[in-house]
Amino acid sequence: MLADAYTRIKAIQAEARAVGEQGWEGPRPRWPLIVLRTPKGWTGPETIDGVQVTGTWRSHQVPLSGVKGNPEHLALLDTWMKTYRPDELFDESGAPVDLVRAANPSGDLRMSASPHANGGVRLQGSPDAGDGLHVPLDIPDFRDFARDVPAPASVRAESTRALGEMMRELYVRNPESFRLFCPDETNSNRLGAVFEVSDRMTAERVEAGDVLLSRHGRVMEVLSEHNCHGWLEGYNLTGRHGLFATYEAFAMVSASMTVQHGKWLEEARHLPWRARVPSLNILLTSTAWRNDHNGFSHQGPGLIQTVLTARGEVARIYLPPDANCLLSVADHCFRSTSYVNLIVIDKQPQPQWLTMDEAVKHCAIGAGTWEWAGNDDGSADPDIVLGCAGDVVTMETVAAAQILKDKLPQLRVRVVNVVDLMALSRPRNHPHGMDGVRFAELFTNTVDVVFAFHGYHGAIHQLVHGRPDADRFHVRGFSEEGTTTTPFDMVVRNGVDRYHLVMDAINNSKRQVPGASDLKAWCQSQLDRHHAYIVEHLEDMPEVRDWLITTEDETV
Amino acid sequence: MLADAYTRIKAIQAEARAVGEQGWEGPRPRWPLIVLRTPKGWTGPETIDGVQVTGTWRSHQVPLSGVKGNPEHLALLDTWMKTYRPDELFDESGAPVDLVRAANPSGDLRMSASPHANGGVRLQGSPDAGDGLHVPLDIPDFRDFARDVPAPASVRAESTRALGEMMRELYVRNPESFRLFCPDETNSNRLGAVFEVSDRMTAERVEAGDVLLSRHGRVMEVLSEHNCHGWLEGYNLTGRHGLFATYEAFAMVSASMTVQHGKWLEEARHLPWRARVPSLNILLTSTAWRNDHNGFSHQGPGLIQTVLTARGEVARIYLPPDANCLLSVADHCFRSTSYVNLIVIDKQPQPQWLTMDEAVKHCAIGAGTWEWAGNDDGSADPDIVLGCAGDVVTMETVAAAQILKDKLPQLRVRVVNVVDLMALSRPRNHPHGMDGVRFAELFTNTVDVVFAFHGYHGAIHQLVHGRPDADRFHVRGFSEEGTTTTPFDMVVRNGVDRYHLVMDAINNSKRQVPGASDLKAWCQSQLDRHHAYIVEHLEDMPEVRDWLITTEDETV
Repeated sequence: MLADAYTRIKAIQAEARAVGEQGWEGPRPRWPLIVLRTPKGWTGPETIDGVQVTGTWRSHQVPLSGVKGNPEHLALLDTWMKTYRPDELFDESGAPVDLVRAANPSGDLRMSASPHANGGVRLQGSPDAGDGLHVPLDIPDFRDFARDVPAPASVRAESTRALGEMMRELYVRNPESFRLFCPDETNSNRLGAVFEVSDRMTAERVEAGDVLLSRHGRVMEVLSEHNCHGWLEGYNLTGRHGLFATYEAFAMVSASMTVQHGKWLEEARHLPWRARVPSLNILLTSTAWRNDHNGFSHQGPGLIQTVLTARGEVARIYLPPDANCLLSVADHCFRSTSYVNLIVIDKQPQPQWLTMDEAVKHCAIGAGTWEWAGNDDGSADPDIVLGCAGDVVTMETVAAAQILKDKLPQLRVRVVNVVDLMALSRPRNHPHGMDGVRFAELFTNTVDVVFAFHGYHGAIHQLVHGRPDADRFHVRGFSEEGTTTTPFDMVVRNGVDRYHLVMDAINNSKRQVPGASDLKAWCQSQLDRHHAYIVEHLEDMPEVRDWLITTEDETV
Repeated sequence: MLADAYTRIKAIQAEARAVGEQGWEGPRPRWPLIVLRTPKGWTGPETIDGVQVTGTWRSHQVPLSGVKGNPEHLALLDTWMKTYRPDELFDESGAPVDLVRAANPSGDLRMSASPHANGGVRLQGSPDAGDGLHVPLDIPDFRDFARDVPAPASVRAESTRALGEMMRELYVRNPESFRLFCPDETNSNRLGAVFEVSDRMTAERVEAGDVLLSRHGRVMEVLSEHNCHGWLEGYNLTGRHGLFATYEAFAMVSASMTVQHGKWLEEARHLPWRARVPSLNILLTSTAWRNDHNGFSHQGPGLIQTVLTARGEVARIYLPPDANCLLSVADHCFRSTSYVNLIVIDKQPQPQWLTMDEAVKHCAIGAGTWEWAGNDDGSADPDIVLGCAGDVVTMETVAAAQILKDKLPQLRVRVVNVVDLMALSRPRNHPHGMDGVRFAELFTNTVDVVFAFHGYHGAIHQLVHGRPDADRFHVRGFSEEGTTTTPFDMVVRNGVDRYHLVMDAINNSKRQVPGASDLKAWCQSQLDRHHAYIVEHLEDMPEVRDWLITTEDETV
């Protein structure tokens, strides 16, 4: 029967592969599947205490309970176990006999040693080469896709488009080992450059009106976070590379998969024979702050909280503020192995801050002072530190600093941007954690910090716990205040807009500066104006909507 | 055609209901479903720029772009919009004409006002009675199911069994409006008392060997967290009551549903016409610390982190340490409306701490000092505070305090147990948040706190942020160190066992006490003994496995 099945499987395979060689134009190959039906609990006692067990749900429970005190059950267990004829299978020391060992596969035929199961083992040509299938990703120079940034916030761009262009080259250079997995529309996420070199994949019939859709396609697009997440996991575990790009709020749909894959990576690191596999790269785009059109259900940055619970040896969270930082971060993530890399950045047009050289330096250290954004010359502690992590809140922070520099120039303001969220951790909690000296260089040990965060404030609270006087961190973030409104109203509702940040800076700076009360009153009047303006015009005030740093305002 | 469909639906309904009246023994009723197929993008432009749009995926995108600058597109849009004949539908002021309004349903026929959609509106007999369907739950006195606790930790019990007994009475008293939803085995979660009064529900054929399974059954058991969670949501939203009981780690499977239901409740609270609905009650049992047999994949207390991100007006998290506290908490949750109540307690036999009277008081305040567990008489600040939240870590904390009292009696130790996790919040962040005076009464303003937490340490770090000198909270919790091992080894691996807690207490107490070094050495030797013992015996050391507070040790 086995031989018959084997022969038929071989025939089906040959037929399917012949279809493949015809250019995949024929009918969809139907791969064989062997279904073996057995009674549930087969080989166990048929009945126990007069009740049917084999073939019923009872055999899924503990079929024989209380064997220590019930001689009848013990006898049943004894009889059952002996049906396996242990005398023939084990020798006197309890070790399996040759007959048993002869059935063991050896070498790469062992289940976990198979090249597909230990997917990180390399194919060839490296110091740790093996008999595996893994080929390191051929990555183009990410600097080739840089955005030109003449001065901070002098131009806007859709940052994820740059990543799309980088992935287009990844597709070209790695035709067998790179894929993008996207439950939303790849185009809508501004990653559409990949379609210049790859179709979307389908296993079904391609119809006349279909565009960029074929069996050869390597962009995986289907509206199921579970499907896309699971596909990428399998792809990674077989040694290949990819990115899962999804709406931020809906990443929670597959949060348990993120958790469980992280656990797998955590455990695999402690098995010396397991080669490291490409990292699970997750891009959260279409974020809370720019789902003003989709509303409250689409506003939820919760996956950050979930990834924070994984061990420091696998969890990585990046919040690049612009395209050049995103490229630098993505390059790092694509090169890395055995991490869960979470990258959070929105897809809408947004100010660009750093040249590529600046971005590379900034991302390498993970967090840094943006001298041009503040007015702190480093000669003394500033009066207030404005911290930020995340694209939209970084814009609000820099805009707040511009207002303070313009209208309250005596107040010494420092702006610190954080790309690598884990840099805020203490080194004992995460390998990326800054040491105390570096932390103090950025945030001082005593000055209050108004920290504008992309996600829920609790994430920052837990990261800075144990830092000197952590209570001085006043975190503003997404506090579940959202609806269908304007982009700026989203930050206003959550108190993380430029005007609230200016007021927070004034309220928390230890030094009183003349004019502060007037500025607070002006901020409140701007908020009042905002509320009235959006009701009348259904869009944001021009000074907010079109905000960039103009030449006159520039303090670079 | 409509009339024909209506007539046929009526006939199908009548037939199905007749089957129901026969005692549900007949074939499964097949409810009608109307399928209307239309071309995608029907009524829109058939083709745009020479490309087919109607009936293709293109009509899901923005079908006409750039109408401001493209006169041809603008003309197409104009033609399209006019096919709806707005002149006939709106008057000169832009308001709908009578013809349109005549089609609007009124009263309870309006979609959101229907009794099933506004499920919190009451049926009758209360000050806020309406035309709704909601009947408040008839709750038995939870004290009737109390466990007898002669002295703290003098007895063990499976705490969830008491909840099962309480739910049995809920089923009896509320035959139309209470259900338990359980993706695992209700019996395995020790909630099986409900089967004394209800079968499991099935819509399929009942076979000869099936037990406690019928169409009349009201216990909802199917191995799908999504199904069970969604069923309970729908049940709550139609005004009825229930509990979703699941493995702690697998609650992450439906985490996005918890988040989205929380968002719905958050928004519904701001709509004056929406009546409050029964709370979404989630019981996490089979917890991380007692999945020593199932291993690392089953060890994940992450849902706490997720619920912490919801607004204070809906999020509630309870960690009752024993059966009597669980009953008190459950009573509160079943009475509450429009919350997400998360209750975390394991199902395995565990020490019982409080009499019912003590439990009621303890749960009402949410957190309290257990004088009997420490040796702090309140006359001065203690040398160290041992905080705890969660059943297993509470046992480790009390055991650590016992060791300290016994072997280092000069050290003044206070034990504080937290049932209502949100009590740790500042009042500005959560309505349950303790004020500063109460917080200081428990934790002082200056003494270090070794806090043993059921979940990830970041949860406590974020909750105590902003409390006086929050850095003095040294939190031990689940740090992703797990495997298949013994129960006590689970806490040892994560450093939250009694011996580590004693060493932590000594290391963090400001006052040096003679004998501390010797006690630390003894703790280390106990840990060494533990490691050797479990390898040899495959179970925990007797003094740990059988730990209870005996009469000799009692300091009550």
